[in-house]
Amino acid sequence: MLPVTLDRTSDEPLPAQLAGQIRSLVLSGTLASGDRLPSSRALAADLGVSRAVSEQAYDQLTAEGWLEARRGSGTYVTTTRPPGVTPPHFAPSLPRSARATGVTPRPTRPTSRLDTGTPFFDPRLEPGWRRAWREVSVAAPPRGYDDPRGLVELREALATRLGRTRGLEVGPDEVIVTAGTTDGLRALLPELRPGPVAVEDPGYRAAAETVLSYGREVVDLPAVRQVDDLGDAVAAYVTPAHQHPLGRVMPAADRLSLLEAARRADAVVIEDDYDSEFRYDVAPVPAMATLDRDRVVYLGTAAKSVVPTLRLGWLVAPPGLHELILRRRTITHAGAAWPSQRALLTLLRDGWLDRAVRSARRVYAERAPKVAEAMSPYATLAGPLAGMYSTWLLPESEARRARDAARVAGFEINLLSTYARSSGLTGLVIGFGGVTDAELDQALTAVTGALAR
Amino acid sequence: MLPVTLDRTSDEPLPAQLAGQIRSLVLSGTLASGDRLPSSRALAADLGVSRAVSEQAYDQLTAEGWLEARRGSGTYVTTTRPPGVTPPHFAPSLPRSARATGVTPRPTRPTSRLDTGTPFFDPRLEPGWRRAWREVSVAAPPRGYDDPRGLVELREALATRLGRTRGLEVGPDEVIVTAGTTDGLRALLPELRPGPVAVEDPGYRAAAETVLSYGREVVDLPAVRQVDDLGDAVAAYVTPAHQHPLGRVMPAADRLSLLEAARRADAVVIEDDYDSEFRYDVAPVPAMATLDRDRVVYLGTAAKSVVPTLRLGWLVAPPGLHELILRRRTITHAGAAWPSQRALLTLLRDGWLDRAVRSARRVYAERAPKVAEAMSPYATLAGPLAGMYSTWLLPESEARRARDAARVAGFEINLLSTYARSSGLTGLVIGFGGVTDAELDQALTAVTGALAR
Repeated sequence: MLPVTLDRTSDEPLPAQLAGQIRSLVLSGTLASGDRLPSSRALAADLGVSRAVSEQAYDQLTAEGWLEARRGSGTYVTTTRPPGVTPPHFAPSLPRSARATGVTPRPTRPTSRLDTGTPFFDPRLEPGWRRAWREVSVAAPPRGYDDPRGLVELREALATRLGRTRGLEVGPDEVIVTAGTTDGLRALLPELRPGPVAVEDPGYRAAAETVLSYGREVVDLPAVRQVDDLGDAVAAYVTPAHQHPLGRVMPAADRLSLLEAARRADAVVIEDDYDSEFRYDVAPVPAMATLDRDRVVYLGTAAKSVVPTLRLGWLVAPPGLHELILRRRTITHAGAAWPSQRALLTLLRDGWLDRAVRSARRVYAERAPKVAEAMSPYATLAGPLAGMYSTWLLPESEARRARDAARVAGFEINLLSTYARSSGLTGLVIGFGGVTDAELDQALTAVTGALAR
Repeated sequence: MLPVTLDRTSDEPLPAQLAGQIRSLVLSGTLASGDRLPSSRALAADLGVSRAVSEQAYDQLTAEGWLEARRGSGTYVTTTRPPGVTPPHFAPSLPRSARATGVTPRPTRPTSRLDTGTPFFDPRLEPGWRRAWREVSVAAPPRGYDDPRGLVELREALATRLGRTRGLEVGPDEVIVTAGTTDGLRALLPELRPGPVAVEDPGYRAAAETVLSYGREVVDLPAVRQVDDLGDAVAAYVTPAHQHPLGRVMPAADRLSLLEAARRADAVVIEDDYDSEFRYDVAPVPAMATLDRDRVVYLGTAAKSVVPTLRLGWLVAPPGLHELILRRRTITHAGAAWPSQRALLTLLRDGWLDRAVRSARRVYAERAPKVAEAMSPYATLAGPLAGMYSTWLLPESEARRARDAARVAGFEINLLSTYARSSGLTGLVIGFGGVTDAELDQALTAVTGALAR
């Protein structure tokens, strides 16, 4: 007789219970290879269940390869647990989450983030947002994997928009829809020859970390100086429209110098154009890709103009790279979620995105001077006022004091040092897209209070 | 006087036109560093426009770094085009798409794919699908980046489901929502020590290609033999529930042997559990991860049970790897689109996913024998009938003949050789999820007609 107990009050069907317990007996070593099991009839009688229960359990375990039926002889165990294999956790007494330590617990008190990644979302735009998702709800999704370049209608709309807002004249077949800026990088990096990638210092951490994840070295590119030489770097990752996080617009001479350096090194320039639309001093500077379409890989994102969690971006690469990227994406099925693509199409067609950009720009244009007024007695502004954050140079100790004071008040503000590598720059990066005006006032009061001490 | 012409009928504002033309003059070399521009007043008079137009254009170009204003002296060009830089394509006469060759053109005639990646979608489930997206439309999306593990309610629902359907008892904090199986691989690969990755041969091309994209070597793991030794591989990618594409369920003894080999090599086993729910002979075999939670990384996907373009999957990793993956994803912002996550949550809560799995399983259980009946006079079935495709062993020439005949009839069927590396296996992989019964009949008629010749 097998040492098994069935629980008739359980939701789990009896054959599954029985199969699971016999499996455990093999794994625990109680049953070993060659052991003969009772007949299904005898086991059913022992357990007081119908024979169908034991037969189904035996069939299941035979299909899984634990048991085998020998004609006219009975059912035998085929497998013995090797000594090294850990017994299974069929019924852990504690949720395993209790073991997953090292994960930073979320603060219990809700915290507002004054970060660079939370854009303003105008509540007046909510009806248009809902309409876009209602359109998704009635559209038929592709049944299999879709075009690796993304939804054609979306690529058409993006191509038009790139020409109009960024001076980048492209056809829809040159645009590849990505799941965001770092997904664009993940598409590009495997196609570059071996070698380090230069990333601005201070710069976008997600980009540097993505480069590292491909086993490539990150070399520091000075964020606010002209670059004449890329060394052995195979690519230079830059944010020319609005340096992340110092805020500088890369001057024309520096753009040309970088392109010339890239040409000499046979490297590509990766232009992360993340928040180019949010200039409120002058019109947006045309994309650097307009200066050399054969040298620049252009990365755009909906993270700042719509919401980050849409996970959508777009990529325009020189033709040779475009084909390599597409070839691999056709095989790996990497790409953006279709519902997000379909929703962005509606948002573009309805003029929603233009309204969202204008509305956010207006709010940022009001808030940036407010932050400047509060901060300028204590710190030095790193770049022009543009976009959804401003960066203030301060000694690290003062920046930390201010950050801690903000945290006590319920606000999360990033240290500039988290963006810096060898540059060693310190200060605060104060985002103002993701909070209300009142919250921004409270946060600035906390920060300036700490700095005034 | 500057050689510029403004077009008053254009949609482009006059200051932008003027700035663009001056920019082109610098880039073409007509204007060089140190050249003095006419005053904004004189230029405006020359062009017959208001002075605001020329002032705005000068302000814009000054902000971009092309011009500089010297106090009391005028406005000067700061930058000269270096000889090596390609002039910009401000107005290409041809769409650049004409240059993007090498991309396989889509067939003009619609083709139905009998592939492994197009699941059945029951039209009776459409109302529930639409409801899920209507819920997305009224839910407030996260404003900034969300939890790098994914939506907590979704992780709770997935954890419950993994316990119920796959025998995998996990807490919600052990689940990481991904953008699909290859995204799960992209999360995992950077955290493994250097070394090759063993991938089943024949096997999932997207997995092998993703491994290669990280600069790692792919070594061949026999798909249907017991594995006793992993050599210097740091991971083994397997599909134990339903070998892709041969269809075999990995027997218990082979599972234990592979785990033992992984333990000796200090390698991880990557379990791609892509269509485990679509068994119609016996109940699904419990996930291999249940046998050794400290050695197996479990990858699940919604691509087969919902639709591939939702771009959603989930990952359960041993605690140490879990923390490394999470640490990096917190920085890179890699993750699944929030709307897809929110929709899947509704589909799980409403019982939609269970209904979809049952309905698809019923259809596959009907179609698989139909395929078997048609094919078995001509070819050898590679594994048990399970899932949404079956694989038939044939000489390559016959397989190609059948594939070509299907193509003429408007159906795309994959060759087994595209999945094979050193194994050299040949034949046809016939998917039956993405077509109607009538289409399946037509395709089988074309295939068997070609094989009978």
